[in-house]
Amino acid sequence: MSLLVIGSVAFDALETPFGKTDKIIGGSATYGSLSASYFTKNINLVAVVGDDFPAEKIELMQKHGINTEGLQIKKGEKSFFWSGRYHNDMNSRDTLVTELNVLADFDPIIPESYQNCEFLFLGNLTPQIQQTVINRLKNRPRLIVMDTMNFWMEIALDDLHKTLKMVDVLTINDEEARQLSGEYSLVKAAKKIMAMGPQFLIIKKGEHGALLFHKDQAFFCPALPLEEVFDPTGAGDTFAGGFMGYIAKTEDVSFENMKRAIVYGSAMASFCVEKFGTERIVNLTESEITDRVKQFKQLSQIDLELI
Amino acid sequence: MSLLVIGSVAFDALETPFGKTDKIIGGSATYGSLSASYFTKNINLVAVVGDDFPAEKIELMQKHGINTEGLQIKKGEKSFFWSGRYHNDMNSRDTLVTELNVLADFDPIIPESYQNCEFLFLGNLTPQIQQTVINRLKNRPRLIVMDTMNFWMEIALDDLHKTLKMVDVLTINDEEARQLSGEYSLVKAAKKIMAMGPQFLIIKKGEHGALLFHKDQAFFCPALPLEEVFDPTGAGDTFAGGFMGYIAKTEDVSFENMKRAIVYGSAMASFCVEKFGTERIVNLTESEITDRVKQFKQLSQIDLELI
Repeated sequence: MSLLVIGSVAFDALETPFGKTDKIIGGSATYGSLSASYFTKNINLVAVVGDDFPAEKIELMQKHGINTEGLQIKKGEKSFFWSGRYHNDMNSRDTLVTELNVLADFDPIIPESYQNCEFLFLGNLTPQIQQTVINRLKNRPRLIVMDTMNFWMEIALDDLHKTLKMVDVLTINDEEARQLSGEYSLVKAAKKIMAMGPQFLIIKKGEHGALLFHKDQAFFCPALPLEEVFDPTGAGDTFAGGFMGYIAKTEDVSFENMKRAIVYGSAMASFCVEKFGTERIVNLTESEITDRVKQFKQLSQIDLELI
Repeated sequence: MSLLVIGSVAFDALETPFGKTDKIIGGSATYGSLSASYFTKNINLVAVVGDDFPAEKIELMQKHGINTEGLQIKKGEKSFFWSGRYHNDMNSRDTLVTELNVLADFDPIIPESYQNCEFLFLGNLTPQIQQTVINRLKNRPRLIVMDTMNFWMEIALDDLHKTLKMVDVLTINDEEARQLSGEYSLVKAAKKIMAMGPQFLIIKKGEHGALLFHKDQAFFCPALPLEEVFDPTGAGDTFAGGFMGYIAKTEDVSFENMKRAIVYGSAMASFCVEKFGTERIVNLTESEITDRVKQFKQLSQIDLELI
């Protein structure tokens, strides 16, 4: 069952209390597709880079089973670049540089071979581009999952609302859920956001775990308590990629199965933050992932008879 | 199996975004013993009040099966009084008034009938008083659980360290765990704090749930996502009381059983925040508690086969 991933493929330069990097690869579609690749080898990527993007990084994606036919390489142009500095608590960061470059006029072309995908992950991009992708698919995918961010709530709220009506699952963080809904309580926020379109809502709370809402049901998955969070960049996209990959592998879009998918997504995110950028998630083994999921089980699952 | 609860029995005056109260009853031992009373009727209270404390509130405790023989009533003196105002997010508060009154020279006298208790909950008081209580017990209880706060870390750290060596379980919040250990990572903080004495550590994270640590194991219990947090006062003590009550009822001090006790403690705390002060936890039914624990099960427990 094929998974279509669209989002940014880009350069990041990061500063954390543990050190700093030169330009390394990043972007929502990079993290998302690499993470999903541990669950399914039928991944089709749509993104755009400049000709400054290293060929060996594209080959790395291909080695992970990611089809890059839909990755446009713009001659004479530069890839999207973001630079940020994390504060000591790792929960907040300042943006130092944002250079849109090739993203400024990105036209998401869907190769013919990508049509009839079953699962679609819309990584963080303008709501307008996300909409265009859906409209260019001849058949609606079984499940459309969309990520977004506060920036689009500020400058493209109408477009965002239109796109929200077209998707099944929205993933956002807690502050974004509060901003989008105008409600501080996440339970109230979830109700309002689901009324905007998506039947399922995943609220990512970073070190405090993730909540899945559907109708009047909720499921909570903790984040693994870690000795050290080295670099949180990409953790949310890695989470979403693991979630989508698990759904694509199991071909089951029920609420029950989404709960399991969230545990796998959280496990993938817990690897991501252990090293800079994509370093940790390009070399995982199946048994490392299984062990991590076992840790989640031990952390949260109990034999609870009611007394 | 008897449970000895020591802590404050006091007056609070509260301001939240939802309203304000006159002087209402509060205090760590009040919340703790009321919460525990839903699990065991063998609760012995040690505390001190002035003669301004209403007799009907003492009767209310007795009706909950709480033995108040060890509640000293000081003639001509006033009860401990605390007043605070919560900020809009309900996660932080300002102290407006603290009047120690009878707590200033509290000598915790243990009635003879309280000796040989199996379980001891040391609610938040000076570490010196907590130590005195342990020293005055002829036989060491099977399980000693201690709560404390940042204030004692600032003005009585040596005493706190001495008391920590004498207890089995410490309950503190995340900020206090960071302060006590000097570590931001809660995993590192837990290791350092367990090396100070307690074999078990419970870190309370408010709306973000609670973590139990023991040796190299960890268990996480979420907080129930609520539409409205009306008043968080006493939630931590209500949590601890539910935890202790469950342990006393089941007479099982294993790590596995503590996991279940934390779920029951969290369920009790989720009631506490629904109304001002003790209002919600004085009138609970068994089926309300069972339903709430079922909600925790639905929220966090899944059928997770490894793939």
